[in-house]
Amino acid sequence: MTVTAPKGFTAAGVAAGIKESGQPDLALVVNEGPRRAAAGVFTANRVKAAPVLWSQQVLRGGEVSAVVLNSGGANACTGPKGFQDTHATAERAAAALGHSAAEIAVASTGLIGTYLPMDRLLPGIDKAAAELSPHGGERAAIAIRTTDTVHKTAVRAGEGWSVGGMAKGAGMLAPGLATLLVVLTTDADLAPPVLDKAVRDAVRTTFERVDSDGCMSTNDTVLLLASGASGVTPGYEEFADVLREVCEDLARKLIGDAEGASKDIRIEVIHAATEDDAVEVGRTIARNNLLKCAIHGEDPNWGRVLSAIGTTKAVFEPERLNVAINGVWVCREGSAGDGRDLVDMRFREVRITADLDAGTHSAVIWANDLTAEYVHENSAYSS
Amino acid sequence: MTVTAPKGFTAAGVAAGIKESGQPDLALVVNEGPRRAAAGVFTANRVKAAPVLWSQQVLRGGEVSAVVLNSGGANACTGPKGFQDTHATAERAAAALGHSAAEIAVASTGLIGTYLPMDRLLPGIDKAAAELSPHGGERAAIAIRTTDTVHKTAVRAGEGWSVGGMAKGAGMLAPGLATLLVVLTTDADLAPPVLDKAVRDAVRTTFERVDSDGCMSTNDTVLLLASGASGVTPGYEEFADVLREVCEDLARKLIGDAEGASKDIRIEVIHAATEDDAVEVGRTIARNNLLKCAIHGEDPNWGRVLSAIGTTKAVFEPERLNVAINGVWVCREGSAGDGRDLVDMRFREVRITADLDAGTHSAVIWANDLTAEYVHENSAYSS
Repeated sequence: MTVTAPKGFTAAGVAAGIKESGQPDLALVVNEGPRRAAAGVFTANRVKAAPVLWSQQVLRGGEVSAVVLNSGGANACTGPKGFQDTHATAERAAAALGHSAAEIAVASTGLIGTYLPMDRLLPGIDKAAAELSPHGGERAAIAIRTTDTVHKTAVRAGEGWSVGGMAKGAGMLAPGLATLLVVLTTDADLAPPVLDKAVRDAVRTTFERVDSDGCMSTNDTVLLLASGASGVTPGYEEFADVLREVCEDLARKLIGDAEGASKDIRIEVIHAATEDDAVEVGRTIARNNLLKCAIHGEDPNWGRVLSAIGTTKAVFEPERLNVAINGVWVCREGSAGDGRDLVDMRFREVRITADLDAGTHSAVIWANDLTAEYVHENSAYSS
Repeated sequence: MTVTAPKGFTAAGVAAGIKESGQPDLALVVNEGPRRAAAGVFTANRVKAAPVLWSQQVLRGGEVSAVVLNSGGANACTGPKGFQDTHATAERAAAALGHSAAEIAVASTGLIGTYLPMDRLLPGIDKAAAELSPHGGERAAIAIRTTDTVHKTAVRAGEGWSVGGMAKGAGMLAPGLATLLVVLTTDADLAPPVLDKAVRDAVRTTFERVDSDGCMSTNDTVLLLASGASGVTPGYEEFADVLREVCEDLARKLIGDAEGASKDIRIEVIHAATEDDAVEVGRTIARNNLLKCAIHGEDPNWGRVLSAIGTTKAVFEPERLNVAINGVWVCREGSAGDGRDLVDMRFREVRITADLDAGTHSAVIWANDLTAEYVHENSAYSS
């Protein structure tokens, strides 16, 4: 299912030999039409991987016939040769599928600064093209994993149409975006400008509000492909709602599988003067290493929440701040509130509510705790 | 020595019983004159501890007769009662020393959100006052430690005058400032406005350029007291240079004793368009958890340096970035440079040089690696 749940899509996932482990590492998602409308959102990092630079160009045309995705190498910080490799990837897929390379998006994930093994990647594209199937979505989702322990997929149905999606990402999750590759598909019949608005709206309140470790990747890519195969053109709000639900589902799964994490932290900032204030405060709390350690230790250390809030530019008065952890208001009006011993933190999901008492806006940011396992996993990544 | 190295100062450090461990937890530093000029810099955190609010008021008068410092409790997020406790602390010291409370600065460090045990703290002030000595600087430095494994002191001599200092801090080190308490003393004969400029200049390029874990405290305080007891009035540059050296020495010691750290990372950003750019890039590298983990794993992962630089607003072109780790240019012009295996990372100090190739400015930021011990120490802090 997943990206092949909507009508008009085929996919495949194969082991091309990019990963030394022999695990699946190359995925192909093809829009079989009749329409090939598309939109995308890419990393805000100014150091962009070659496939991001390539796919941004492709998206300008508003049409994408297929996406080639590989794990096992990010093809970032690889200079002109890296860009040539991405170009060759698109050309090979174009030849295999009978399309123009200008309509083939490419996405890569893995270690920065090394070249992709093109002698294995290119034959892998032919292999994937030969295995394309309307049931191939699951295998595609499996092939894009790096340190992901599970593959992430989601699907939601509209009236006579649907949206499917797959995502990879397990660390380096940060707004704007994360080390995530996401392919979303729909058989709704929608034009590129509508898809563009819908995907930007959805990403803004979902993938851009997960912040596992404050780090921003060079490769983040979210693509939305529309085949029009359902023959249905839903209203904008109707479509946007379903798309957002799929993105929310995938974003939650990314946080739930973040590297080394033992807690998923839902930070809700309420009564902010503006939504920007709420997001700034939420992100600042999400990135506070001391708080992330405290949550790992199941310690409802609200002082660290206030310390973090104090570093923001949001509208608030210190003596009017309230903080709840798992529903217990441990900080009231800037000082100690209800007993810390009332807070039960045994479960994986931890809820922090920060009440700025300064307005009517709110936002939710998802984060993870900081653990020895995170340190271990990221100390040993490239060596 | 330390704060009592310059003429005209006495100090003491005692165990008042604020810490349950019975370790020393209360320090007194007294300016015996003839002058009592002073200046200070405080945390930029908008959630400020009661002693910070108090001491900021005291400093407005430009005169400080004594500083009371306690570990074992931050007296932050403690509301009106917390402020009353700080006021009572100053009053008690004023009575013991025969000065006005309006000239007594107070600094506290420890857990946020709990009240200080005033029934033990106040008698501790009397005890410290009784033990004041021109040789008490060392004991004062010992009494202000929290998770510090060593006490930190420094002293430098000018011509006929000197500057001494003590610092505490071992985590939550961040610009603007850190969880640090610093008392600097000098027997130079200087007026408050000169001291103010000198201490701000010194802090800006020393304590504000250490960033152990990106977190900013509610209690950071740097005080400079001048007794004039040497009878010498050095020129501004002469004094500022010596003061900066003392601050650099203390800042380096803070990084060297940061919680759980196994590496001290010296990040030098060169060829930046402006000093602000250099500092922004340095801080962003310093706060990148993935890079901090890689350094811990002795992995010269320059891709994470570029990823971090890419999130800044500094002037640079990705394909012109160069990065050296311990002197080996592992990244040249945005791509792989000299061999990573040439980098020797066995020693505690690691040097990262980021060349933006965009101008003539530079800055140095000091940071630490991220370790399982950091997680452990900060998971168990308050519980």
